[in-house]
Amino acid sequence: MAAPKRLGLATVAFSSPPVIISAAALAGPKEGQGPLASYMDKIIPDTYYGEKTWERAERKMLEEALQLALTKAGLSPESIDFLLAGDLLNQLISANFTASKLNIPFLGLYGACSTMYEALALGSMLIDGGFAEFVLIGVSSHYCTAERQFRYPLEHGNQRTMTAQWTVTGAAACILAKQGQGPRVTHATIGTVIDLQQSDPADMGSAMAPAAAETILRHLLDTGRQLNYYDLIATGDLGRYGHQLVTQLLTEAGHQPADRYRDCGMLIFSPTQDVHAGGSGCACSAVVTCGYIYQQLQSGKLKNFLGLGTGALLSTTSTQQGEHIPAIAHGVAITAG
Amino acid sequence: MAAPKRLGLATVAFSSPPVIISAAALAGPKEGQGPLASYMDKIIPDTYYGEKTWERAERKMLEEALQLALTKAGLSPESIDFLLAGDLLNQLISANFTASKLNIPFLGLYGACSTMYEALALGSMLIDGGFAEFVLIGVSSHYCTAERQFRYPLEHGNQRTMTAQWTVTGAAACILAKQGQGPRVTHATIGTVIDLQQSDPADMGSAMAPAAAETILRHLLDTGRQLNYYDLIATGDLGRYGHQLVTQLLTEAGHQPADRYRDCGMLIFSPTQDVHAGGSGCACSAVVTCGYIYQQLQSGKLKNFLGLGTGALLSTTSTQQGEHIPAIAHGVAITAG
Repeated sequence: MAAPKRLGLATVAFSSPPVIISAAALAGPKEGQGPLASYMDKIIPDTYYGEKTWERAERKMLEEALQLALTKAGLSPESIDFLLAGDLLNQLISANFTASKLNIPFLGLYGACSTMYEALALGSMLIDGGFAEFVLIGVSSHYCTAERQFRYPLEHGNQRTMTAQWTVTGAAACILAKQGQGPRVTHATIGTVIDLQQSDPADMGSAMAPAAAETILRHLLDTGRQLNYYDLIATGDLGRYGHQLVTQLLTEAGHQPADRYRDCGMLIFSPTQDVHAGGSGCACSAVVTCGYIYQQLQSGKLKNFLGLGTGALLSTTSTQQGEHIPAIAHGVAITAG
Repeated sequence: MAAPKRLGLATVAFSSPPVIISAAALAGPKEGQGPLASYMDKIIPDTYYGEKTWERAERKMLEEALQLALTKAGLSPESIDFLLAGDLLNQLISANFTASKLNIPFLGLYGACSTMYEALALGSMLIDGGFAEFVLIGVSSHYCTAERQFRYPLEHGNQRTMTAQWTVTGAAACILAKQGQGPRVTHATIGTVIDLQQSDPADMGSAMAPAAAETILRHLLDTGRQLNYYDLIATGDLGRYGHQLVTQLLTEAGHQPADRYRDCGMLIFSPTQDVHAGGSGCACSAVVTCGYIYQQLQSGKLKNFLGLGTGALLSTTSTQQGEHIPAIAHGVAITAG
């Protein structure tokens, strides 16, 4: 009799934890000046990356990240059972156009900046459920495509508030496998959408923080673990203000997060880089996870990791229509292989 | 030893085929004048449905469809393990805002108009994989929100080409369960993204047809079945021109589709309704499947059904930048319970 795969209200436990057999991360020039630059496989030289549009540059990064993950694992696209991918652009054009070059059965996902973690959770279920041997995962974002779509033309040079975050230019990919060497995905906690009526699109960290805290607490309740079971808990892109809020919410719930809890949006840039509250975007948690954290897990410096993909589920239309910003966070527990 | 869950390159076969224990479909006023009106649970009286924006009206329909599927199954939201949902609006605001009211672990999907079938495929894998007992699925689209976002302000009154399609106003939902009474999902064939360099956004049926034909042929190859195994094969929203093209492609491949092959975009409207090539949108295949087809499967008039969700993966940005229209189709085989 296999162990139950469902724990509590929102967590699944994998009976044969899928292995992350390879990971790849590409980052933009600004990220290449940040503290995690040495963990990236490639830093692109400028935001156009030889393409005529920023959208094409973003796709090129995603395509390269996916190819690099395949190359590192010694696999061809034909070996992959499913490709799970997404991005921030309307109708997922980065993921969809990239997928058109790969001929792999494709499932498009949208969880805003939580998409890498949504994909890790779903991909692990597809493998542990017996439907796939290899699942390829990838996400991307680009400062210039995101600003064009969500905010102002860059040429406008508008003043940003101190709570605003900087969309990470980057792409990351990894391969989940039924067997092999590498860190293993042991649990996934799927978030619910939380709307605490925050409606300032220039402070998404605060909008996402309650969802992140909720998923962390739900994960601990479902698994029966304490926060200090994990060497590191990292949220995706809450930035400075969201990180403060999650720290407060966890402390109020009786935990002592302290240095054990970090945010990828604070790790990717240094405070001197003028990014205000920190990094954001699909690529933020993705390049930190597939670059820095993956290498820490592989080297054994990190043993038990809980990552939270965090997503602010607004659109320009919803904001123009005066709606709040609902948010979500998906948690994935990864243990060193 | 359980039967293999993976057949060929792109198909999964469920060892315990999940049951669709309930389904619900709401449609707009124009759809309510169409040939399938009697199969809908509710026809809304006007496009605003008592809300101040069309976007809110779309959400209200989606919320009602999800609630109705729960009510029909005698389940509360707390019984549901996962909610899988999506829509056409940027950043999936219909699905995300609706999910914020339900407190169910939520996974956002984007497959353009193929989203209902992507959700049926993934939801079935989550159940057959042992991760869920009940999965709630829902999608929506709205003519007025889609026109506002993708095309012209309705007030502009622009002339539409004869290859253009009419986005279905509607929402549909269903519940997949590990056990129970109802039609069963036996197989899912996940599509690859196909780009045959069609770039006319007013002829999406032709752009999607090759992807639909490819997934049908792949499904037959993977399962070893003949086309005539199925009483009905229905594509999601190819409309008149796409339907012609798929018929031609299947015929060239040695099959005789004839009346066995239909398109939901042609079923939902009558030719006298001035919708040009037919219906489209997330809700097109969804309301036809959760309304008409579900009832045909339940009454035994239909025994073996193969449905194809079809999606054109363009955005306004990709079109403005001169890109082609990549497309995808996911196939799901459903057999009467």
